[in-house]
Amino acid sequence: MPQRPGASLHAGVALRELDEEEVLAQVLPLLPADPDAVVGPGDDAAVVITGTRIVTTTDTVVLGRDWRDDWSSGADVGHKVVTQNLADVAAMGGRPTGVLLTLVADPAVGLDWVLDHAGGVGEACRAAGVGVLGGDLSSAPPGVVMVSVTALGALPGDPVLRSGARPGDVVAIHGSLGLAAAGLRLLEAGTPERHAKAVARQRRPHSPLAAGPQAAAAGASAMLDISDGLLRDGRRIARASGTVLDLDPGRLQSDVDALAPALGRAAAQACVLRGGEEHSLLATFPGRMPPGWRAIGVVRAAATGQAPGVLLGGRPCEVGGWDHFRQSR
Amino acid sequence: MPQRPGASLHAGVALRELDEEEVLAQVLPLLPADPDAVVGPGDDAAVVITGTRIVTTTDTVVLGRDWRDDWSSGADVGHKVVTQNLADVAAMGGRPTGVLLTLVADPAVGLDWVLDHAGGVGEACRAAGVGVLGGDLSSAPPGVVMVSVTALGALPGDPVLRSGARPGDVVAIHGSLGLAAAGLRLLEAGTPERHAKAVARQRRPHSPLAAGPQAAAAGASAMLDISDGLLRDGRRIARASGTVLDLDPGRLQSDVDALAPALGRAAAQACVLRGGEEHSLLATFPGRMPPGWRAIGVVRAAATGQAPGVLLGGRPCEVGGWDHFRQSR
Repeated sequence: MPQRPGASLHAGVALRELDEEEVLAQVLPLLPADPDAVVGPGDDAAVVITGTRIVTTTDTVVLGRDWRDDWSSGADVGHKVVTQNLADVAAMGGRPTGVLLTLVADPAVGLDWVLDHAGGVGEACRAAGVGVLGGDLSSAPPGVVMVSVTALGALPGDPVLRSGARPGDVVAIHGSLGLAAAGLRLLEAGTPERHAKAVARQRRPHSPLAAGPQAAAAGASAMLDISDGLLRDGRRIARASGTVLDLDPGRLQSDVDALAPALGRAAAQACVLRGGEEHSLLATFPGRMPPGWRAIGVVRAAATGQAPGVLLGGRPCEVGGWDHFRQSR
Repeated sequence: MPQRPGASLHAGVALRELDEEEVLAQVLPLLPADPDAVVGPGDDAAVVITGTRIVTTTDTVVLGRDWRDDWSSGADVGHKVVTQNLADVAAMGGRPTGVLLTLVADPAVGLDWVLDHAGGVGEACRAAGVGVLGGDLSSAPPGVVMVSVTALGALPGDPVLRSGARPGDVVAIHGSLGLAAAGLRLLEAGTPERHAKAVARQRRPHSPLAAGPQAAAAGASAMLDISDGLLRDGRRIARASGTVLDLDPGRLQSDVDALAPALGRAAAQACVLRGGEEHSLLATFPGRMPPGWRAIGVVRAAATGQAPGVLLGGRPCEVGGWDHFRQSR
């Protein structure tokens, strides 16, 4: 693999050689301002002018669990943690507007890594038209690096919950399936060259942020982003809605085909069905889907004695996916 | 010291024996809902109805750096991290309305500790009339426990910044000085019985939240909460305002006197001047102070060649205080 500039966690000047204000003086210029912020970073709190309904969410990544230093640069990690937070705002039908950024790091971590990371956060925020409102910088025990982001967004209409899917609705996806998980497998296998795009998506996932509010405006009945796998996240909609999501394996075939040459067919299928970190949007629509969405199944009523859940071609399936504490896949 | 119920980090059922949903099912009932939340915890993001100006801030605590397991229970940690975030909202003149709560913990941590912690978060939120909007639960490397809170608040008027202090303003404090730092010293010395109230404040600091919006309404020109010590935080106002804050040692004498019997006079004075984690409010007023505030100094113009900063009885002083990365006091 090519050397990634700025990727080394412990090179150069360490954080412990600087005080907090010196670090912030270098980090803040890398982060875009929020044009709606009356007060940005540097005071006790930020002040932002909003609509009267705001969407807010928070998500955290931890070195060694959510990323590996030899696989992802600081900028990659910044991109990823911002994207996964903004995806949650979009999945409610919201338009992301601002983030708060917390870095908790071993003081032995290099300033270069921190600046590379802040550059990635800034880039992802700018691409989404989002400003950085504030944050926190803290030290951690040796070896620990953790980034936590809270995102805020505006909600133009009603929120799209997980609980609104109704029998007869179409189940649809906007974006790719399985790429990020395939990239992880290839990194684990030491063969990233077999599917460069998948590896790039593992490092920097893409979420179709504008599709969230568009789906809401088009009447989506339920929506979320694929964080923990199509089957596991699909089951979340099914359980919250008290319905069954019946996915059509034929509609997922092109996703599997795209990964099979690099991974083999079984692994490609596992990535498409159970791969997390993709941040594509999964929604249900009672009527017409907006452009960019593709149907992959249908919502059914749970039969008598049948638990709400997800089916594949009408048959029960092993859901799998990621659990934080059990750390099983 | 008396045994503190629920204080043991690793007793009982460990997080790794449960999945995330099982943990959340026990945690969520302990947390108050936000009455303004259209959508609370459990979906991709929360949705809250706000005024058109919101205040937002985030602050994180880390086991071993911000608290010791043998000195603070999970509930204490929950109280403290909520209070320090809400204090930042109040210090802008805002009224806290909601929080997001992130727990990143070694899977070996006991569920009992987590529930005790959530109980403390819930108690502090309820006391402040604040709801829990959502959060995140993640695993961490062995030995690591970290709690991050993001607070949201409503801003009834203009924000009170650090930069508004003007020559002639009165410098005033609302609340105690040095208690939390004194408590830490007594815990470190193994003599907590010498000042039980100080030790209690170290575990569960108190911030006069309602005094923030009251000060704003009364025309406070600058405000913050004491996080890193009176001198260090005072210097923040001075530097942001381009002024000098001249504190009157005589006005701080009663604070020193209250701690001297337990600590000795020199240590008591150090706590009052440089003790952090107190979360009392420090403000400057061009006119009359509202009830509950007491004058401790005056804002002066920086003389020619004099840097903005803090003086004690007209003389320069060693500011000290806490820095996260250098870890000096």
